[in-house]
Amino acid sequence: MQAKTPSDSRTIMTDLVLPSETNPLNNLFGGELLARMDRAASIAARRHSRRIVVTASVNHVAFNRAVPLGSVVTVEAAVSRAFSTSMEVFIDVWMEDRFSGERTKANEAIYTFVAVDDTGKPTAVPKLEAETELEKQRFAAALRRKQLSLVLAGKMKPKEATELRALFMEE
Amino acid sequence: MQAKTPSDSRTIMTDLVLPSETNPLNNLFGGELLARMDRAASIAARRHSRRIVVTASVNHVAFNRAVPLGSVVTVEAAVSRAFSTSMEVFIDVWMEDRFSGERTKANEAIYTFVAVDDTGKPTAVPKLEAETELEKQRFAAALRRKQLSLVLAGKMKPKEATELRALFMEE
Amino acid sequence: MQAKTPSDSRTIMTDLVLPSETNPLNNLFGGELLARMDRAASIAARRHSRRIVVTASVNHVAFNRAVPLGSVVTVEAAVSRAFSTSMEVFIDVWMEDRFSGERTKANEAIYTFVAVDDTGKPTAVPKLEAETELEKQRFAAALRRKQLSLVLAGKMKPKEATELRALFMEE
Amino acid sequence: MQAKTPSDSRTIMTDLVLPSETNPLNNLFGGELLARMDRAASIAARRHSRRIVVTASVNHVAFNRAVPLGSVVTVEAAVSRAFSTSMEVFIDVWMEDRFSGERTKANEAIYTFVAVDDTGKPTAVPKLEAETELEKQRFAAALRRKQLSLVLAGKMKPKEATELRALFMEE
Amino acid sequence: MQAKTPSDSRTIMTDLVLPSETNPLNNLFGGELLARMDRAASIAARRHSRRIVVTASVNHVAFNRAVPLGSVVTVEAAVSRAFSTSMEVFIDVWMEDRFSGERTKANEAIYTFVAVDDTGKPTAVPKLEAETELEKQRFAAALRRKQLSLVLAGKMKPKEATELRALFMEE
Amino acid sequence: MQAKTPSDSRTIMTDLVLPSETNPLNNLFGGELLARMDRAASIAARRHSRRIVVTASVNHVAFNRAVPLGSVVTVEAAVSRAFSTSMEVFIDVWMEDRFSGERTKANEAIYTFVAVDDTGKPTAVPKLEAETELEKQRFAAALRRKQLSLVLAGKMKPKEATELRALFMEE
Repeated sequence: MQAKTPSDSRTIMTDLVLPSETNPLNNLFGGELLARMDRAASIAARRHSRRIVVTASVNHVAFNRAVPLGSVVTVEAAVSRAFSTSMEVFIDVWMEDRFSGERTKANEAIYTFVAVDDTGKPTAVPKLEAETELEKQRFAAALRRKQLSLVLAGKMKPKEATELRALFMEE
Repeated sequence: MQAKTPSDSRTIMTDLVLPSETNPLNNLFGGELLARMDRAASIAARRHSRRIVVTASVNHVAFNRAVPLGSVVTVEAAVSRAFSTSMEVFIDVWMEDRFSGERTKANEAIYTFVAVDDTGKPTAVPKLEAETELEKQRFAAALRRKQLSLVLAGKMKPKEATELRALFMEE
Repeated sequence: MQAKTPSDSRTIMTDLVLPSETNPLNNLFGGELLARMDRAASIAARRHSRRIVVTASVNHVAFNRAVPLGSVVTVEAAVSRAFSTSMEVFIDVWMEDRFSGERTKANEAIYTFVAVDDTGKPTAVPKLEAETELEKQRFAAALRRKQLSLVLAGKMKPKEATELRALFMEE
Repeated sequence: MQAKTPSDSRTIMTDLVLPSETNPLNNLFGGELLARMDRAASIAARRHSRRIVVTASVNHVAFNRAVPLGSVVTVEAAVSRAFSTSMEVFIDVWMEDRFSGERTKANEAIYTFVAVDDTGKPTAVPKLEAETELEKQRFAAALRRKQLSLVLAGKMKPKEATELRALFMEE
Repeated sequence: MQAKTPSDSRTIMTDLVLPSETNPLNNLFGGELLARMDRAASIAARRHSRRIVVTASVNHVAFNRAVPLGSVVTVEAAVSRAFSTSMEVFIDVWMEDRFSGERTKANEAIYTFVAVDDTGKPTAVPKLEAETELEKQRFAAALRRKQLSLVLAGKMKPKEATELRALFMEE
Repeated sequence: MQAKTPSDSRTIMTDLVLPSETNPLNNLFGGELLARMDRAASIAARRHSRRIVVTASVNHVAFNRAVPLGSVVTVEAAVSRAFSTSMEVFIDVWMEDRFSGERTKANEAIYTFVAVDDTGKPTAVPKLEAETELEKQRFAAALRRKQLSLVLAGKMKPKEATELRALFMEE
């Protein structure tokens, strides 16, 4: 299988915030944004693997900015690292002010998908080759996140998570 | 403000998996489950605080079980710890087999909400008093999760996260 | 087949009233509530019978209370009596005020479901054993409702509906 | 206020049965049909009264025919009798076979609506003048249904419901 | 195959404008109206052909009137001319003022559908016989529209479009 | 007002075809695609004008390719020419095969929007400066389309439509 770049899987989903998706403060529900990010990220993972993909996990997501009704929201997803049968997808969310058109970062999130065959069995995916500086940083950090994920799932002992351990012991 | 128990905020949302929510393998989209959990958890946070609440963050979520079309899914959410203006909500997801009726754990997730007034400004919430053994465990672990969240957001230095640091240094 | 209790089928569906479900007075559409109650009640009937179930009839439903946008609505359904292949499901609807959290009864309804096999043919269901005082009252009244239903459908002559007749002739 | 005829309020809502509205047997959910009938009937009541209307009650509804995915369903609603501030709406539901185009009766239902002003207070509605034979039958029967509704709601004693009582005592 | 009249396919779809379908000015999105018209027109084409039908093209549509939230919208569609395997459907859209009940023309549109068999292959449809004066005008104009459509698709040379050419050269 | 380029308004909306959007052949409904294109195009028009925009018209749209359930569809919209208060938006639709990932052109469409202020009154928009060869072709053709639109709406006499007339008279 030939390696792919993040550009090969980059997926852009721009859409409006509709009244049926907003909370009593007239801002986009967190849950709706999580669902949109899942759809965009799953398309990115499918573009990388050309397989059916299923959501395996969602990293810690912080909601720093309220997204008001009527905003234009752009969800941009691209595979940030591929493992044997799984792919980490990095998602950037931008919002545009309805009046000024000013574009600001609303959110970041990281989802992991597994590629499966028609029976649901995990199947191999192409390697990822990061190109830009930012892509390389995200690629490097993905290993640390994978260790954290394994530790949190109880599948790796904290002291074996060398990358993470270094983080907490640095002076 | 009088303290409350997890029972005071416990929210149960049982519903079917409909065709419009499933992926090409006829299983519930991860993103749809994230949105359902957000709705249930936000109701729990509102019941605890009697305020408008907004999603502040979602902890690491792992999707271990596929949830097939036509399943009955029960999302059960309750506040697991209250901080000054924020609440951690613990969510358990159960699924029932369409034929046997057998009920199995499909997922766990932890969301954090902030209580706000009508202008969106954070506002104080009642304390939480854990009652059962499980509630007490979740209450205790919430502090460690909060530190991890602060570290990941760059708002706390790893070496100040005493709870976490102990975890990675233990022999 | 072993008899079951109402607790075995009790189904709780708590959710928000969203903007897409409200009428020009910003209250929940009656029709949306009828659809939610049908989903909750069908899950209760499925839990009792462990079969596919189809809605057979809806009893007279009165809408006494408007349910405003943003309310938390809890639909609680449980099988109230089982006949040979059909089940009566009793549904209680509660609403919580957004601010005070006060919980009041919003509605009651009674739906009947038939259990069917994969070809749509009616199939036998377990008996119901009422436990609490309220469950026993609802169990007893179900027979009268069934007669009324048969009379209204022209499948029973009014004078054969002994339970009902007594009701209208009592001094 | 000038009297109106059923033709003045007749409302026809023809639409497809979509995959998101069907149960595991690929038939229209009873609850979805209840919601469609409510929308059509509320438009009929609004056309009669030119007021905001709210669903007051739903009569006994029997589901005799399964409506398969992909069917064309026609919901036809018209006011069948007007009282001081409320209107009874009679609803006929037709389905067309996807292949033969054959049109058969799928359902009947009767909803009652109350006309309200902008503050939600009940307000007077025009009288109804039935024209056809069928409209006259439905107009006459509406009084009996209203008594039954009052009896069931505990607002009229069974023995005062003269119309109904006659029904159960006839030889 | 026996010829049919426009009455045989006439399809009426009356429904409310809901909050989830409106733009920031609280008027129905143009795109939602296009989707409703497509559903109504496809039912008309199916009634004429008793076949599965797929949208082949949409003529130029002008949106002259804003349709406010809460309006009652009636989409009325009927086949206006049948060709060998395709049908032109003429759609009239009416809106009713929420308060006065006044009914005004909101839009007109013309869609073309192709009848197909289960494999998606085009299949013959009955002829159309126009009856009223308006139906005859629409029937006649359909040929001109078909030529325009072929010219715009590059499947007919402008100078061969005799009907159209006359239009632009008339003194 | 400073002129803008098509790149300034380019809007990309990539999403899946879900079961609730498909016809009996399991292909995307034409009407759903029309609605998606309207949303994408309205965002492009808003990005160009930084105003509320309303759909004014849709040019002739031909549906040449069926888009199967589960496909990834990309709608790409950009302003192709600006007039005094209106903007023509050109939309390209691409689909990707679920398995091979092959990307093919599924559709083209042209919508026109008017920029309005908060009261709905038309308001001036920036000029458009085409940059690429394709953008320049589309810019030039927009004038001919505008004439055709005016002729079809009866607001311009065919013989005054000099651009169009030439088309039909050329040897």
